[in-house]
Amino acid sequence: MSELISSVATFDVRFPTSRHRDGSDAMNPFPDYSAAYVVLRTTGGAEGHGLIFTVGRGTEVQVAAVRTLADLIVGASVDEIVADPGALARRLIGDSQIRWLGPEKGVVHMAAGGIVNAVWDLAARRAGTPLWKLLADLTPEQVVAQVDFRYLRDALTEEEAVALLRAGVPGRAGRERLLREEGYPAYTTTPGWLGYDDDKLTRLCQEAVEDGYDLIKLKVGADLDDDVRRMALARKAVGPEVRLAVDANQIWGVPEAVGWMTALRGFDPYWIEEPTSPDDILGHAAVRRALAPIKVATGEHVHNAVMFKQLLQAGAVDVVQIDACRVGGVNENLAILLLAAKHGVPVCPHAGGVGLCELVQHLAMFDFVAVSGSWEDRAIEYVDHLHEHFVDPVRVERGRYRVPTAPGMSGRLRADSLDAYRFPDGPAWAVADDAAAATA
Amino acid sequence: MSELISSVATFDVRFPTSRHRDGSDAMNPFPDYSAAYVVLRTTGGAEGHGLIFTVGRGTEVQVAAVRTLADLIVGASVDEIVADPGALARRLIGDSQIRWLGPEKGVVHMAAGGIVNAVWDLAARRAGTPLWKLLADLTPEQVVAQVDFRYLRDALTEEEAVALLRAGVPGRAGRERLLREEGYPAYTTTPGWLGYDDDKLTRLCQEAVEDGYDLIKLKVGADLDDDVRRMALARKAVGPEVRLAVDANQIWGVPEAVGWMTALRGFDPYWIEEPTSPDDILGHAAVRRALAPIKVATGEHVHNAVMFKQLLQAGAVDVVQIDACRVGGVNENLAILLLAAKHGVPVCPHAGGVGLCELVQHLAMFDFVAVSGSWEDRAIEYVDHLHEHFVDPVRVERGRYRVPTAPGMSGRLRADSLDAYRFPDGPAWAVADDAAAATA
Repeated sequence: MSELISSVATFDVRFPTSRHRDGSDAMNPFPDYSAAYVVLRTTGGAEGHGLIFTVGRGTEVQVAAVRTLADLIVGASVDEIVADPGALARRLIGDSQIRWLGPEKGVVHMAAGGIVNAVWDLAARRAGTPLWKLLADLTPEQVVAQVDFRYLRDALTEEEAVALLRAGVPGRAGRERLLREEGYPAYTTTPGWLGYDDDKLTRLCQEAVEDGYDLIKLKVGADLDDDVRRMALARKAVGPEVRLAVDANQIWGVPEAVGWMTALRGFDPYWIEEPTSPDDILGHAAVRRALAPIKVATGEHVHNAVMFKQLLQAGAVDVVQIDACRVGGVNENLAILLLAAKHGVPVCPHAGGVGLCELVQHLAMFDFVAVSGSWEDRAIEYVDHLHEHFVDPVRVERGRYRVPTAPGMSGRLRADSLDAYRFPDGPAWAVADDAAAATA
Repeated sequence: MSELISSVATFDVRFPTSRHRDGSDAMNPFPDYSAAYVVLRTTGGAEGHGLIFTVGRGTEVQVAAVRTLADLIVGASVDEIVADPGALARRLIGDSQIRWLGPEKGVVHMAAGGIVNAVWDLAARRAGTPLWKLLADLTPEQVVAQVDFRYLRDALTEEEAVALLRAGVPGRAGRERLLREEGYPAYTTTPGWLGYDDDKLTRLCQEAVEDGYDLIKLKVGADLDDDVRRMALARKAVGPEVRLAVDANQIWGVPEAVGWMTALRGFDPYWIEEPTSPDDILGHAAVRRALAPIKVATGEHVHNAVMFKQLLQAGAVDVVQIDACRVGGVNENLAILLLAAKHGVPVCPHAGGVGLCELVQHLAMFDFVAVSGSWEDRAIEYVDHLHEHFVDPVRVERGRYRVPTAPGMSGRLRADSLDAYRFPDGPAWAVADDAAAATA
């Protein structure tokens, strides 16, 4: 009797980060970093873990969506789904009734992505290898077979993707060795949260430079005078050589983005991230034209590969920011990496939150070894929050992500953290105003 | 003591339409037309009704999203929210934690729209007037104040919108009289479902012409030989003068759309609807350039005003198809109507499903009286399914929607229908294979 998926358990897990304004930005003043956490279990006793990052209220809706899609996978053959997660992804994303609720966007799409990521975690655990390495050992044809090209062929055909990947095969071994030795570049957002006072901002900027970072990101967009003062303090703290990126988290329309950034131009911002609605491809293109050479970055809220395709076709972005949890899982992120490589645009993954660093590092490392073949102008976002809750947390040293070596996709929560932060019944939430007392 | 919102009741209602393949198309072979049905109740005993159309599985996720947003409205002053539904819409759509699950798209956005529509229904009931008339009596400034322009000003400013609406004020009374006399043009999709056989297609096409329709829509995209045969039969049945639109429901990529429609060109298709992903603005523009003078139509899955803005900016569509339930409610549809009018592109609302005709007729009629001021090249979709479940069903005669006269937005379900089709406990679902016996 072959091994089957026996259950999909889903948990609402929330961390009360708003109490210290960690993660505060112009659009998200008080986030509670949270997740719909997914555990696939098999009749053979194996597990696959995934999560969908959220920021508090509404996580229960994300959990409900995972439960609805779980009905489509329980009973499936484990051998079949780990051999071809792409087929499962198409089935979850393409369900003819559920897709009405997207299609390919929002809660149902992220639910599919969470399950697909858990399948890849299971596949990598079974293979006894970290996910980045499992992906980097696939042949070009195997990678391409994992991508749904239905809406992408006007920008990238299967044949072009195979050719692009084949060109990287000879260098794979050397890049893998380099990656294991040096680690993958990181940048830090730790200093720049909007809710931090000037002293904390200055201190954290100085510490970041001492820690080896050469790219630091600040949140902007709530108040222009504050932003001018904070940029001046940060520039003074880091000196002229360290790059300072800024992130508006969608607060502006197109004319406001251009005006505000023009006022900050003197501080030499490296990129402006999410200057406007993530849906506004033409708006991003207009902002980019108006602000060059300031780069335009976006992606954490770009909901699928069709949108990334157009951002690239329209020349709207200098930096593609993939997110491990926003789109339909590893498979759709393979498509986005291929599209970016075809257009010669670097990928700097969005991370932070809870678990995003752990998950997305695998995709960036795969990109380096097998797709773009470069880490020039590339870095994975890093924020030093909540890693202690993971069984296999990221290791970032001197501004570099060290390669994960444990099998899987690194998204497995510690059992004690899962128990403590389950919402609303975990002890961290049982006494809202005194979590410490409650967990004692 | 002022009147307050006392509760928001939400119901999962499903009609087993897949049993006869009503509504079958290339992407939706077996839809069960369904809704997350919303009832606002007040301490004064008034009610507002709204619904979010779905097609079966996953409706429980839509219901969960409404319940999450309902927490933000229970206890609100009825006077305040009916005086300014736009403020409520911004609060529901802008909740800093819940918006992570969109933003402004998918399940959470449709949930906001369902609640906002129920508020407008309540406002119109209190005013004792149908919604279209309530809207048509607003001043230009009042209409514009109901729209969130944050991401729209690069295409349309508040001042331009006011000027556009003011230009229509002198003709409002005359158009309202004409509308009451003649009704608003309709087109029919009843004959064209993919699951119907050739005889049924021919017979329904002939009946549609006899009923006074001069625009009929057929589903295409599953099999090219079938489409050629069905288009030939339909063209023969309706003659050369009646317009035949076709609808691919997103089945193609850009090159396939161009190739397939080129093969159907000889049957003089009036428009091609949803030739590819609803997110593919640049793809629609490419299809339109390749296929002119065949028109390109889309909108039922276009998830917000930012996307419609770009479809218009890019010259990607000839026909804007608003949907009453896809975006954030009446307010966001006001924005879309204004954007379309600014660009001189006609709006032909998507309807059918369950309740979509009832809801969206109000928006098209408002557009005629106060925004575009025209019904040339415009028509509301009509499908003769499931109207019997509504307290105030649409009346379509000789290919025209008669104006609704009852107060509200016409989305109130009959109590016996709500009881019978509640999922999964209603008698229509209690015995899956024999609904008739179960309800007897």
